[in-house]
Amino acid sequence: MKKSLIALAVMAASGAAMAQSSVTLFGVVDEAVSYVNGGNNWNGINSGGNATSRIGFRGTEDLGGGLKANFWLEAGILADTGAGGNSSGSGLEFKRRSTVGLEGAFGEVRLGRDLTEAYKATSRYDVFGQVGFGVSRLWSDGSLGGVGTSTQRVSNMITYVSPNFSGFKAAANYGFGEKAGDNKANRYFGGGLTYDNGPLSLGLSAERQNAGPAATYWTGAAYTAGYTAKDVTTWALGGSYDLGVAKLAAAYKDSKAKDDNGNKDKLKGYYIGLSAPVGTAGEVKASYNHYEGTQFGQAKLKADQFALGYVHNLSKRTAVYGTYAYLKNKNKDGKNLNINLGGATLKDNGAQHGLQVGIRHSF
Amino acid sequence: MKKSLIALAVMAASGAAMAQSSVTLFGVVDEAVSYVNGGNNWNGINSGGNATSRIGFRGTEDLGGGLKANFWLEAGILADTGAGGNSSGSGLEFKRRSTVGLEGAFGEVRLGRDLTEAYKATSRYDVFGQVGFGVSRLWSDGSLGGVGTSTQRVSNMITYVSPNFSGFKAAANYGFGEKAGDNKANRYFGGGLTYDNGPLSLGLSAERQNAGPAATYWTGAAYTAGYTAKDVTTWALGGSYDLGVAKLAAAYKDSKAKDDNGNKDKLKGYYIGLSAPVGTAGEVKASYNHYEGTQFGQAKLKADQFALGYVHNLSKRTAVYGTYAYLKNKNKDGKNLNINLGGATLKDNGAQHGLQVGIRHSF
Amino acid sequence: MKKSLIALAVMAASGAAMAQSSVTLFGVVDEAVSYVNGGNNWNGINSGGNATSRIGFRGTEDLGGGLKANFWLEAGILADTGAGGNSSGSGLEFKRRSTVGLEGAFGEVRLGRDLTEAYKATSRYDVFGQVGFGVSRLWSDGSLGGVGTSTQRVSNMITYVSPNFSGFKAAANYGFGEKAGDNKANRYFGGGLTYDNGPLSLGLSAERQNAGPAATYWTGAAYTAGYTAKDVTTWALGGSYDLGVAKLAAAYKDSKAKDDNGNKDKLKGYYIGLSAPVGTAGEVKASYNHYEGTQFGQAKLKADQFALGYVHNLSKRTAVYGTYAYLKNKNKDGKNLNINLGGATLKDNGAQHGLQVGIRHSF
Repeated sequence: MKKSLIALAVMAASGAAMAQSSVTLFGVVDEAVSYVNGGNNWNGINSGGNATSRIGFRGTEDLGGGLKANFWLEAGILADTGAGGNSSGSGLEFKRRSTVGLEGAFGEVRLGRDLTEAYKATSRYDVFGQVGFGVSRLWSDGSLGGVGTSTQRVSNMITYVSPNFSGFKAAANYGFGEKAGDNKANRYFGGGLTYDNGPLSLGLSAERQNAGPAATYWTGAAYTAGYTAKDVTTWALGGSYDLGVAKLAAAYKDSKAKDDNGNKDKLKGYYIGLSAPVGTAGEVKASYNHYEGTQFGQAKLKADQFALGYVHNLSKRTAVYGTYAYLKNKNKDGKNLNINLGGATLKDNGAQHGLQVGIRHSF
Repeated sequence: MKKSLIALAVMAASGAAMAQSSVTLFGVVDEAVSYVNGGNNWNGINSGGNATSRIGFRGTEDLGGGLKANFWLEAGILADTGAGGNSSGSGLEFKRRSTVGLEGAFGEVRLGRDLTEAYKATSRYDVFGQVGFGVSRLWSDGSLGGVGTSTQRVSNMITYVSPNFSGFKAAANYGFGEKAGDNKANRYFGGGLTYDNGPLSLGLSAERQNAGPAATYWTGAAYTAGYTAKDVTTWALGGSYDLGVAKLAAAYKDSKAKDDNGNKDKLKGYYIGLSAPVGTAGEVKASYNHYEGTQFGQAKLKADQFALGYVHNLSKRTAVYGTYAYLKNKNKDGKNLNINLGGATLKDNGAQHGLQVGIRHSF
Repeated sequence: MKKSLIALAVMAASGAAMAQSSVTLFGVVDEAVSYVNGGNNWNGINSGGNATSRIGFRGTEDLGGGLKANFWLEAGILADTGAGGNSSGSGLEFKRRSTVGLEGAFGEVRLGRDLTEAYKATSRYDVFGQVGFGVSRLWSDGSLGGVGTSTQRVSNMITYVSPNFSGFKAAANYGFGEKAGDNKANRYFGGGLTYDNGPLSLGLSAERQNAGPAATYWTGAAYTAGYTAKDVTTWALGGSYDLGVAKLAAAYKDSKAKDDNGNKDKLKGYYIGLSAPVGTAGEVKASYNHYEGTQFGQAKLKADQFALGYVHNLSKRTAVYGTYAYLKNKNKDGKNLNINLGGATLKDNGAQHGLQVGIRHSF
């Protein structure tokens, strides 16, 4: 006989006693048929066009006296091939989040691997939810090689999240470098300050990564071979306002680092976005991103991105969607920002169109 | 406190509202003590003598208006060592199935990795369920190197399954090759047509795989080093009839391919099988397989296999079983079909006996 | 909508019928902030300071007539990074336990990978539960390189566990070497005899491992490169007595092996421990370990370890804890036992202090 997991609705109906020991299984399977034009066109199936495919287990335990314990284990999935969704190529791993924490009137303390609070405070204004062809690459891992990207996730962290003060919330991370004899090498620290009140949302984030020769916690950053960024300092500011008929969002992000040769590398950019409900079940989304960066002491390289999306919700858990993105990479001296819609190679003039149509199902 | 997953029976008792959001955890742990004689005898524990060890999560959501969404994530397990059951050697991966789909009056559309519909339409006549020493190697992955095997599973697929028309059902797959600049390289297409009505079951399958230099989606095919099969075309026909006292089954399968040197490789074979209930809890199974193949323009190689099995069901979920298999590989000019009961090396005359006794438990 | 797993309490309330098909999801997420001094000090986050982080699925099915089927799939987690907790570096794998079994009046028979019964019979007296800085290294994998360690887990095993006879229980394992043509190579056999009655607990264990050139089932044993231990024979004896105000425990363990050059290597040691409740929610623990070993025909090397711990239970499932350990490695002729608190390198005089403070949450 097959076993079934009972819905949360039933859980709630069973009374308060049960809430003390709930464990939730959750996940997303999202796949899209995708096409990218370029020097060599590409088509195929992508995992996670609207939300990253994943599976996880999480729970909260009421310890009494306002104190709660919690855990969260979440693994990425490449649903198009069934592979683990982590960059290391191994199988299923809880690399999206692996934390244990205690929360109370003092706020929350967590240990483990997670999205950084700096990333969370401002990346949340991306109307494309940091996935798919429309993603704002200001925050996405490794896609702007060199100085550009902030780290999305860090291992070996201590995290503190404050209580909510009239809409204000502060959160900070410290990530151990775990290098014997050198506590500064590889360590991470950063934080975010957010304000959420009615239609208005604001976020500010700042972080610093002391990468060293063995930067094991710095995942996903696709630096040019032989190149190690040091003292990467990033700050960002973002906000959104919900007008009812539409929600407007904008953000600015700025990164600096030193490379091995002592050059100062810079990358900055801004983003503006809009999302609006269409009928009872639809949502349109549009965004514009501007990126510019200097690396290895060379000329400033620029890129612009425009994206348009539509999501049709078949239920709260299931949607079909379509996303179109246009990326114009303004190359200079034969060089481009390391930015690409994926799959296809860039055309000579660096412009790409991408389209994906998919299904997203959450459980 | 430990959490428990509630049985489906309870689920059903809780009313229809819950069926809309059920998620099912399912799996099999199957292990057998095995012995194979040969040039060097071998004994040990095998995972999956009666059913492949696995764990998975699947669910269906009723979207109203006859429309349903579904997902299916299923990972293989090598239960004898605890390792992930996929061929790549990494940990747990949803390589057995990873799909998201929509079904309605129009049939079903799915995206992701799965068994091919061609494989499913005819491999189902194997009374040994495509596992263990009695497996019909006409369909099993890579065991008949070169041209012989159909692909069991393909990633990056779009699948369509028709509604049931008076017992007839048609299903087709298209697997993207995902090679930039060459949409034909590596792509897969195939399908199956089945008829199931009372005691009679029939299946027809056909498929084509355009393998290229970087055939990343073509898993499990153990080609001789330096050899790449192209334009692999396979068709198969099978059927079964349930007489009540016994069920008879038979199938024929034929594959053709080109190798790098332009030789035409061929492999074909047939299978006949029988299964019969014994008392209230037992089942005996027997099968004969004949394989023959030509590779690299060399002489035709042949092999014959006979298998006998008994399964004793302790409940619907649990069984103990024993399987005996005899494989006679008729070598020629010092060459054999790449076929083996596993573990032991082939004797000079190419014959092997294998025996396994095990426990299968489903959850 | 998210699904939730219902607590066992609810399970029980639902009546006996359900017990027949229960599947339990269980796990631990345990992380600690750790500091080790040494030649190079180290600090960071460790997974599993009080209990090994893990996730698993297990179940029992009542087959009637006193017969039950069971399965157990358990994977380690490195919760500080989210990685799979197995030594091979791949993702999530059921390497902690992967078994299927039948139990009845005759006892229990299991197939698969598990802790050895020899390990279980005596390692259970370690008051630090075989994890964290206070772990007794008499049993822990690979930390006393060469002859010292017993194998904790073995794959491809047949296990028999006797019924309980007035407190006595016997259990034995046979692990197939799975080497074609040589059934003796790599095989494992061992067992444990235990007596548990009221405050008194006793355990005796013995095992032998015939390691060969391709000892694939022998995991975790960190032998010096180029060195293969053969015919590793281990026995151990342990016991505990619960006085109410405190529980006293002690054990002795002795291992012998041959190395490639025919030298006889030896490692032995003893352990004494104490645990005592403090108030309604606290527990203090203390232990002393003495290790001594001879390897490669060289001089006898010795080490002593003292550990002190406190666990404060916030609930049955959640605790905060602190552990202090001191390790004095008495080096001789520039050589040390291969023993270390982890992270930092040993100081010249071989002494280390370690401290960890963490949270353990079970689900």
